[in-house]
Amino acid sequence: MSGPSVLVTGPVSAAERSQLTAAAPGLRLTFQDRPGSDPAALAATDGLVGSPTLEDLSSAPRLRWVHSWAAGVDGVLVGGRLPQPFASGQVLLTSAKGNGAVALAEHVMLLLLVLSRDFPRWQRAQSLRRWDRYEHGELFGSRVGIIGAGRAGREVELRARAFGMTVVGLRRHHARAELEDLLATSDALVVTAPATAETVGMLGEAEFARCARRPYYVCVSRGGVADDDALLRALRSGQLAGAGLDAHAVEPLPPDSPFWAEPNVVITPHNAATTAATRRRGLEILEHNLAAFAAGGPPGDFRGVVDVDGGY
Amino acid sequence: MSGPSVLVTGPVSAAERSQLTAAAPGLRLTFQDRPGSDPAALAATDGLVGSPTLEDLSSAPRLRWVHSWAAGVDGVLVGGRLPQPFASGQVLLTSAKGNGAVALAEHVMLLLLVLSRDFPRWQRAQSLRRWDRYEHGELFGSRVGIIGAGRAGREVELRARAFGMTVVGLRRHHARAELEDLLATSDALVVTAPATAETVGMLGEAEFARCARRPYYVCVSRGGVADDDALLRALRSGQLAGAGLDAHAVEPLPPDSPFWAEPNVVITPHNAATTAATRRRGLEILEHNLAAFAAGGPPGDFRGVVDVDGGY
Repeated sequence: MSGPSVLVTGPVSAAERSQLTAAAPGLRLTFQDRPGSDPAALAATDGLVGSPTLEDLSSAPRLRWVHSWAAGVDGVLVGGRLPQPFASGQVLLTSAKGNGAVALAEHVMLLLLVLSRDFPRWQRAQSLRRWDRYEHGELFGSRVGIIGAGRAGREVELRARAFGMTVVGLRRHHARAELEDLLATSDALVVTAPATAETVGMLGEAEFARCARRPYYVCVSRGGVADDDALLRALRSGQLAGAGLDAHAVEPLPPDSPFWAEPNVVITPHNAATTAATRRRGLEILEHNLAAFAAGGPPGDFRGVVDVDGGY
Repeated sequence: MSGPSVLVTGPVSAAERSQLTAAAPGLRLTFQDRPGSDPAALAATDGLVGSPTLEDLSSAPRLRWVHSWAAGVDGVLVGGRLPQPFASGQVLLTSAKGNGAVALAEHVMLLLLVLSRDFPRWQRAQSLRRWDRYEHGELFGSRVGIIGAGRAGREVELRARAFGMTVVGLRRHHARAELEDLLATSDALVVTAPATAETVGMLGEAEFARCARRPYYVCVSRGGVADDDALLRALRSGQLAGAGLDAHAVEPLPPDSPFWAEPNVVITPHNAATTAATRRRGLEILEHNLAAFAAGGPPGDFRGVVDVDGGY
């Protein structure tokens, strides 16, 4: 057993350990709850599965590969940017990106339907055994602007089109005018973008002021893409008709956050993609990458390679 | 003004009156709240928009056409069957069927997503400002059986397929084995069928006992297709994982109905299709039919002609 060593951090079931070990017989896998808990293991490892801190990185001189369980690697970023070992190409960074796309898209459609039909009002009526009929909206014929046209965005698009919605997507490299057009013409704004130096705070007071159609705002990727104060003001002023928030700037959302009790705001606890299938898809990506690492393959052989400039 | 007369019953706005009057200049339209409120108007009318009782029908000797605002004409049926003037072909019966199909399909998807993710649990947590993360299901890869493959069923199918679901539909003329196969293989049962002599009570104890995959049960067309006692027992025994009920055997759902407080049951007040677009689509169908009636056209010129045998 003299192959490269990989330290797998975070909770992994016994069945999953067997599965990962079987995926790359040439590797020496060790498992531990957190990366920083064992400096000796860090010092000796060639690969790491988890989200290492800067301190972890400086304790791991042999490190050549890091794989993030989370699709978004903002836990690894420093100031929205990749730290030096990744930026220089010394350490390859991959992630499970795409593993939750289907579940995220289902959650987006749920939140859009909940908001357009005011589902919480029916829930209140049910708790009072009250027959409360009212006119509500349809998604059919409306226009959704998707900020972050990665895998989750594409899965949202597929479902939204089947609902008879018009879809406009915004990719990473866009002109200011594209964003402004999206804001001015959308009945719903959906954020599936990662938190990077470019996206954090990209929706603020000026951007919400451009919303001409009183859209719903839905975020399932990372809080912070919208500025929370501006978001709250836009909801209270009626620039936005409501919000469905699964991702939050601070998590867990603090008990004193005003969003909990804001009318027309639906909160879910960064829980959109927490499904068995997301976990399974993430394990498949990791198995693939363990095999690529064992074979000593180039970055092109790995899945979910994080773009050094983009930070996702 | 000597063309055929049509009595339009039910609430109609001033703008809608103008619109309907303009649709068929050759007709004499009169508007009133309820059909039975003016026997003289009934006695003189050639056409009626609304849902006449048997008594209304016997008071309307000149009647040749009835159009139902509601897509389902169970309000006109007697014992699940069309009464004599319609069954004999003496009076043509049309309805707005299909007008709510899009809105019904959106509601079905909402209820399936709410049930598969236990959305009410997040709502309870939000009211307590509690961060309550848990693993939930995905619709992707699951199988939905649609009972009632009319327009609403087809709209559900379109959306379910985009969600990566397998769809099996059950039409009116089906073999018993087809129903049993659907029950045994579905992860979700969706009822979009009308209430007719053939459908009322078609899902009872024997049928729920055939559900092998613990499906969710969703009904958005008419209560009574499932036997309420059998449905309640199937929910309590775990044969069904939960239910989303928009249509109910008795409406409004009585305050003492056990369904209000049943775990994993989501109640909406026959409100799935109550949208401006449903009303607009219904008016378009009625405008078309007013013009056909004015022109003295055959049944084939009308939209939404109710099948005499099927009762829908």
